[in-house]
Amino acid sequence: MSVPETGMRLRAMARAGTWTGPTAGVAPGHAQANLVILPREFAFDFFLFCQRNPKPCPVLDVTDPGNPEPSRVAPGADLRRDLPLYRVHRPGLPPSETADITDLWKSDSVAFLLGCSFTFDHALAAAGIVPRHMEEGRNVPMYRTSVQTAPAGPFRGPLVVSMRPMTPRDAETATALSARFPRSHGAPVHLGDPATIGIRDIGRPDYGDPVTIRPGEIPVFWACGVTPQAVIADAGIDPVITHAPGHMFVTDLVDMPE
Amino acid sequence: MSVPETGMRLRAMARAGTWTGPTAGVAPGHAQANLVILPREFAFDFFLFCQRNPKPCPVLDVTDPGNPEPSRVAPGADLRRDLPLYRVHRPGLPPSETADITDLWKSDSVAFLLGCSFTFDHALAAAGIVPRHMEEGRNVPMYRTSVQTAPAGPFRGPLVVSMRPMTPRDAETATALSARFPRSHGAPVHLGDPATIGIRDIGRPDYGDPVTIRPGEIPVFWACGVTPQAVIADAGIDPVITHAPGHMFVTDLVDMPE
Repeated sequence: MSVPETGMRLRAMARAGTWTGPTAGVAPGHAQANLVILPREFAFDFFLFCQRNPKPCPVLDVTDPGNPEPSRVAPGADLRRDLPLYRVHRPGLPPSETADITDLWKSDSVAFLLGCSFTFDHALAAAGIVPRHMEEGRNVPMYRTSVQTAPAGPFRGPLVVSMRPMTPRDAETATALSARFPRSHGAPVHLGDPATIGIRDIGRPDYGDPVTIRPGEIPVFWACGVTPQAVIADAGIDPVITHAPGHMFVTDLVDMPE
Repeated sequence: MSVPETGMRLRAMARAGTWTGPTAGVAPGHAQANLVILPREFAFDFFLFCQRNPKPCPVLDVTDPGNPEPSRVAPGADLRRDLPLYRVHRPGLPPSETADITDLWKSDSVAFLLGCSFTFDHALAAAGIVPRHMEEGRNVPMYRTSVQTAPAGPFRGPLVVSMRPMTPRDAETATALSARFPRSHGAPVHLGDPATIGIRDIGRPDYGDPVTIRPGEIPVFWACGVTPQAVIADAGIDPVITHAPGHMFVTDLVDMPE
């Protein structure tokens, strides 16, 4: 099966059930997005959480309550069916996964689309620094850290980061490059020793897959859009729906540095 | 009376009632902000309005419901007393003005602070392009336009712009310079003929004061943080509290291009 070249094509395939996997490398040059859907009652507090934590949660679009079409970033799309895989989070239960959330969408549901690191992954690869997880055909490794987010309402908890190993020289280039993509998490939040930000075992990510770290490389950490999944656990909201890690919403926006 | 050099000093004077005038030129180099206070019930829709209209409404800070301290941009400040003059908007009535809104602040009040053009006025002046209203000691002229904002919930209506006359050559410099201040309305929304954006009489601004336009100059228009005052009229919210035009909240943030 060929890789879809546009967001519209990927979304149609996800809707038809013919694309069920991760979206890394799909629709090159088009911005992908993290998804968070919650009841309107919690939408202001979550918006506030994003405003206070712009590195993990750069807001690309927010829908009108009850309307599943993100008309500013993907006219005609349906957020209930156009992602390959969703996670449904309920208080006290492990998250479950599903390919369609039509039955969970309510008249007061509000969807947030947050910028994703795939945008600068693409820019890094174009600059000759191919992220290791792309090279190894894996999902990017993600870790819960000991760094706390700025709380808002019931939303509070650890910053989640993604990690790309590279030489110190490449890390310098990658830092300057990613800083130009503030809607895609911007510059790294940490370089080097994982223990400094509370990561005990770099070989065991909390989300995604481990990747090889070669001799002479350092881990470089970026704020990650999976952070909301780590801060909703104690918020008591039933349910919160997100994308499954690595299975993003693909927009029509063209990736551009700012 | 000397002009206060810091946001903290201006806020203390406003609180004590010893500074009652406009804030242009106050605390040079510190970001000033437009203020909008509304009940939590409307806070999500207004946040959405700002997200969809980032040029007139660049969000600097949003308070927790009921807490009048904008702790991220001015720790210790009190938004109920620290502006020199407020406007209180009630449906069907002309706005009234007051120097203290303590009695109107409720446990569910939410305050939004939005970036202000005084930031790039300062940068323009530093670049040798002194905005005419500063030169003439007036409030910047502001106009309701025929350009519609992107609506959200009950918030809909015209874009309000501020105007600075300058030579075409200076307009080019000012455009490039202001584009580097996205949290201060960014680049102009229009240059030249006022009629194109529905302004009938450039000599009669809807807010602020008229300024001299010299031969060879063109009017240059920027999105303005007074826009919310033009879109709340039909929203049926009782009350909405804003700053009085020109009487801004002075933050501790240092003006910096991005």
